[in-house]
Amino acid sequence: MRQSRRGQVDPFIVMDVMEAARKAEAQGRRIIHMEVGQPSTPAPMGARRALAASLDRPLGYTVALGLPELRQSIAQLYRRWYGLDLDPQRVVITPGSSGAFILAFSALFDAGERVALGEPGYPSYRQILRAMSLQPVGIQTRAEDRYQPRPQDLPTDAQGLILASPGNPSGTVLRREELAGLTARAAELGMSVISDEIYHGLDYGAGFHSALEVSDDVFVINSFSKYFSMTGWRVGWMVVPESMIRTVERIAQNMFICPPHASQVAALAAMDCVDEAEANLAVYAANRQLMLDRLPRIGFSRIAPPEGAFYIYADVSDLTENSLNFAAEILEKAGVAVTPGLDFDPRRGARTLRFSYAAGTAEITEGLDRLAAFMAVR
Amino acid sequence: MRQSRRGQVDPFIVMDVMEAARKAEAQGRRIIHMEVGQPSTPAPMGARRALAASLDRPLGYTVALGLPELRQSIAQLYRRWYGLDLDPQRVVITPGSSGAFILAFSALFDAGERVALGEPGYPSYRQILRAMSLQPVGIQTRAEDRYQPRPQDLPTDAQGLILASPGNPSGTVLRREELAGLTARAAELGMSVISDEIYHGLDYGAGFHSALEVSDDVFVINSFSKYFSMTGWRVGWMVVPESMIRTVERIAQNMFICPPHASQVAALAAMDCVDEAEANLAVYAANRQLMLDRLPRIGFSRIAPPEGAFYIYADVSDLTENSLNFAAEILEKAGVAVTPGLDFDPRRGARTLRFSYAAGTAEITEGLDRLAAFMAVR
Repeated sequence: MRQSRRGQVDPFIVMDVMEAARKAEAQGRRIIHMEVGQPSTPAPMGARRALAASLDRPLGYTVALGLPELRQSIAQLYRRWYGLDLDPQRVVITPGSSGAFILAFSALFDAGERVALGEPGYPSYRQILRAMSLQPVGIQTRAEDRYQPRPQDLPTDAQGLILASPGNPSGTVLRREELAGLTARAAELGMSVISDEIYHGLDYGAGFHSALEVSDDVFVINSFSKYFSMTGWRVGWMVVPESMIRTVERIAQNMFICPPHASQVAALAAMDCVDEAEANLAVYAANRQLMLDRLPRIGFSRIAPPEGAFYIYADVSDLTENSLNFAAEILEKAGVAVTPGLDFDPRRGARTLRFSYAAGTAEITEGLDRLAAFMAVR
Repeated sequence: MRQSRRGQVDPFIVMDVMEAARKAEAQGRRIIHMEVGQPSTPAPMGARRALAASLDRPLGYTVALGLPELRQSIAQLYRRWYGLDLDPQRVVITPGSSGAFILAFSALFDAGERVALGEPGYPSYRQILRAMSLQPVGIQTRAEDRYQPRPQDLPTDAQGLILASPGNPSGTVLRREELAGLTARAAELGMSVISDEIYHGLDYGAGFHSALEVSDDVFVINSFSKYFSMTGWRVGWMVVPESMIRTVERIAQNMFICPPHASQVAALAAMDCVDEAEANLAVYAANRQLMLDRLPRIGFSRIAPPEGAFYIYADVSDLTENSLNFAAEILEKAGVAVTPGLDFDPRRGARTLRFSYAAGTAEITEGLDRLAAFMAVR
């Protein structure tokens, strides 16, 4: 059978970790999950109730850009979160942030074009780009820059730039003036900017700024997955420049028809469940403090400032040259699943690990106890 | 703002018809819907109950290829429907058949390659191909071939072939020996075959055959949207050759993460709701008979044999040279929404219309009454 070149993308390494963890659990071991990038909580109660109440009527196709009242509600969120006056017409509901990336890349770039992104970063940026015949151009960011690119780091021969704040795996946040500097430099270079803001809402005092605060000429991507605890529902959104609405609509009509209707119904109700989302955030905040208090004493001291999201990214080059083997050893001996950095940084990831604190606090506490015991005898 | 060339895809014309119908309804008119390609019924009761019972637990990411028990259940469907012994590992759950096309095109074809398809056909084939930097190659099929391509019609310079049986808009079915002839010729020419079988289950005596009955070297795409009445749920599936499983899995991990979890839960339960699906089918069968009895007498006599799906494709070249205007006139004067053929056949569609009979029988009856009155005075 013929296979395309572009279809030969890399696997998620974290998937192999999850599979190894699953096998250990199948053998009766209890594993602490610090590898997964998702909340352990369900969708907000109000979201689930709203869906249950909607199940009597047919949930057929919605219009391609999504339920108008959901687009309206998201526009209002931009007023609450950022003080922005956003035309709901510019809000596109998508099948998760994944679907938003597919739409943005299709609308902006032709085959062979180059898109820059910071390393470390979310691995699927790179793989989706490849599968769509685009060339990812990695920018090796520096720990002293909180693993975020600076304007002077942008390549001069790329057509696009992906920003991520808070970053995954770093958890670091771009300041407003940093966003302004990066988008201005990208505009000079003729690069289209895609700003991944999927972890907005999950911050711990640093605050967060949308790229929309500094430019209307950006694609901003977000989702109900993280702050609203709805990963498996596959519903996200994208804010596009006014001139791109019609183009994105036509692509969405053909590539997706519409985002999942049931998930849109749940998402609309989730927008009113701020108390529940904030209660989840309080758990992450407690977990984060536990991690920050204990990880350095355990031996993981070289960490990026975890300003947002629910990750801690650790430089473990003093402990290993092979993060894959190290993660396997931690799983085997401590029963804690963590993610090797190779998923996020093909060059330096052999010497980094990502710890997620999205689980419950009891699980995080036990995970830290196990890591302490493991490192004490290593 | 820069825009890509590949992102400039055509809109669905039917969407404009739906918008015109919506506007008429907003003004208080009652419109009969013969334009929409979806059932008016909800998901099966058992599917909705199963989902309601699952809402207490977190519906997080599933594995990328979908719930193992759903893949297993679909493999069993291939035994029931076709007598095939199918390895569940070859079944990939997708975000609708739309997601399946994105996966198949990514896994099989590189930018610039050519994919053949019959005209008339589902318009999104062409638009998704374009958005992914592929070149659609239209095959003008003939009414005497039931609007299906023949082996001798296949281009010799294409890398792929999309088959559709039952076809949309034609409703015509490829016989087993026709599938064998087409896949054999495609193999000779080095073309990868993608068989769209989304309307399987909706047949009226002709029977239906899967391309898997004649070759394992095909991608077969299907969905819960039509037979199981779950369009807005965005859950479908694809059967891939064994050698392609790992490639498709990696692309799916990155491009979609997973299909919507809630929809997978509902789909799994839907597999047991055959009685309800067959009851819907009985309604379509009655509607189809009404259409066949009355449309020719009304003046729409040049129709493709409607062997499956829920469409009638009519050659109206004796009535108009402009199906767009004709459909607008029917909406305006008769209050019946129908789809101009231009969505399906860019060359001959100005002289064709598609009538959907997916609505309830009372609505179809009233639509036919209105069409009769309209044509009587035209």
